[in-house]
Amino acid sequence: MVQPSLDVVGIGNAIVDVIAHAEDSFLVDQALAKGAMTLIDAARAEALYGAMGAGVEVSGGSAANSMIGLAEMGGAAGYIGKVSDDVLGKVFRHDIDAAGVRFETAPSAAGAPTARCLILVTADAQRTMNTYLGACVELGPDDIDEEFIAAAKVIYMEGFLWDPPGAKQAFRKAQAIAAANGRRVSLSLSDSFCVDRHRAELLELVEHHVDILFANEDEILSLYQIEDFGEALRQVGEHCEIAALTRGEQGSVVVGGGEVHTIGAAPVARVTDTTGAGDLYAAGFLYGFTHDFDLARCGRLGALAAGEIISHFGAKPESDIAQLVAASGPP
Amino acid sequence: MVQPSLDVVGIGNAIVDVIAHAEDSFLVDQALAKGAMTLIDAARAEALYGAMGAGVEVSGGSAANSMIGLAEMGGAAGYIGKVSDDVLGKVFRHDIDAAGVRFETAPSAAGAPTARCLILVTADAQRTMNTYLGACVELGPDDIDEEFIAAAKVIYMEGFLWDPPGAKQAFRKAQAIAAANGRRVSLSLSDSFCVDRHRAELLELVEHHVDILFANEDEILSLYQIEDFGEALRQVGEHCEIAALTRGEQGSVVVGGGEVHTIGAAPVARVTDTTGAGDLYAAGFLYGFTHDFDLARCGRLGALAAGEIISHFGAKPESDIAQLVAASGPP
Repeated sequence: MVQPSLDVVGIGNAIVDVIAHAEDSFLVDQALAKGAMTLIDAARAEALYGAMGAGVEVSGGSAANSMIGLAEMGGAAGYIGKVSDDVLGKVFRHDIDAAGVRFETAPSAAGAPTARCLILVTADAQRTMNTYLGACVELGPDDIDEEFIAAAKVIYMEGFLWDPPGAKQAFRKAQAIAAANGRRVSLSLSDSFCVDRHRAELLELVEHHVDILFANEDEILSLYQIEDFGEALRQVGEHCEIAALTRGEQGSVVVGGGEVHTIGAAPVARVTDTTGAGDLYAAGFLYGFTHDFDLARCGRLGALAAGEIISHFGAKPESDIAQLVAASGPP
Repeated sequence: MVQPSLDVVGIGNAIVDVIAHAEDSFLVDQALAKGAMTLIDAARAEALYGAMGAGVEVSGGSAANSMIGLAEMGGAAGYIGKVSDDVLGKVFRHDIDAAGVRFETAPSAAGAPTARCLILVTADAQRTMNTYLGACVELGPDDIDEEFIAAAKVIYMEGFLWDPPGAKQAFRKAQAIAAANGRRVSLSLSDSFCVDRHRAELLELVEHHVDILFANEDEILSLYQIEDFGEALRQVGEHCEIAALTRGEQGSVVVGGGEVHTIGAAPVARVTDTTGAGDLYAAGFLYGFTHDFDLARCGRLGALAAGEIISHFGAKPESDIAQLVAASGPP
């Protein structure tokens, strides 16, 4: 079998974020579910954009954020996702190229614009996301190249892929190729509302096809429809080789190899914006995993990367996160 | 005479910034003049964008940044500048509208895209700007509405307006309307290289038409082609009713009413990105001036607003800068 030339290939919805501050009253007025990712159509996107404050535009998308983070730590990353050939699509492509992530997915030619996510950040640093999927709905199995998937030690997919109808077929195809080539399959549950929308399918995946699962507490409880985190830990430990469960300021818990590791959150002077926290946790963890770190150190690197992201606005690192690898501890 | 309904109307190049971190070696490789604003054409913009790192897109433009800052402090602001009807033009329009700034300039229909400024921020927090003017070259006297100009206590214009050929005519028209209506005319010198390109015309303006001048140390020395800051102070005091001269971490000096006020820089825990420092200084100063603050307090408010901007990435305030008004001292 060919040696993998990449550490991780991520598959996700390719999105440009529009991030603005908002008052809590704005979320109430606009009937937005705080902390969640809600899908919106083009008309709603236009109306909400018109009502929200001045923003900054940053290329985003959960798995794309993770791959950029992984590349900036020094990992070899690839990405599959669908943008249009419009201005925002070019911004997305520029940014992921600039980070050194291999991104070869053909742009959409069908006319839908590049996806955008309107993100409102409240004073408590919580982010509320409203996604217009645009060109993402055109991602399909044809975008999954067997050689590209087989080139990665791990494939990483976001649960959000279950929202656009064609993407889950891409997801299934990629998972089958990875399995056939002896690669690891990892999944992030992405969002508790997303889990709610696609619970049966995600549960089947977790039980039978996912080697490494990322989820926060709300998401894992939603998946199993239970209220006890300890019980969720026990169940996920039976289904996945490894599970990394994040708990906000309480840090994370990593289950794997018959052990449970409790990892503290990285100290952060001031939490500014939690956008991208889960994405960068996964980036740090997967960098560690693909570089043969033990599981506790994988979790520590995830926590350090998440800590960097929440200390400022937006989901792109602002400092040299390659240095976090050394800070995560001795090999 | 009609009472002014606006505090300040700004006129400037309407630009979307693309801001990215860069190594000093990148500036050397690309032959960029550190700290300066350099004009580039479309082909150079494409090549430089291709070479630079992942960025964030934020609507910018010097005078626009100032007007947004003024509005966020609670002032009544208007803006005149030329964007296209493209995606970035819509971003610019959304952001300035969202800040509550009156912006009624018709978009360009001639095909040039909305201007963009590629900004490289180095580890020393210095920003190096590369501007493709695009639709800004179409700003002209027809965009200056007499009623709009006469509605403001002060008009504020950026020296960068002398780069596109038609804008200086717009600038002259606005200045004449303001003068005829008994309004104050203020000008920022913008950039020492810009002063170099247009010294004779800017000098004539400063000597005869500008009431309130904003400049940093390099710019004022370049204007008078001298090396002694004290001598520059003396000369500008003879030409303008008020001059506010900024000196980076040394604070600023305000000359006016026969007095010289020395203002300390606001304490900043960590200077991250100096983009927008001068713009927000002018915003704070003009908020104070149009609310009858004494000159020292105008300078303190300018310093506080500049301090907010340099503590993070980008030229848009990230905290509630309305509170800076109270922090600037007793009335």
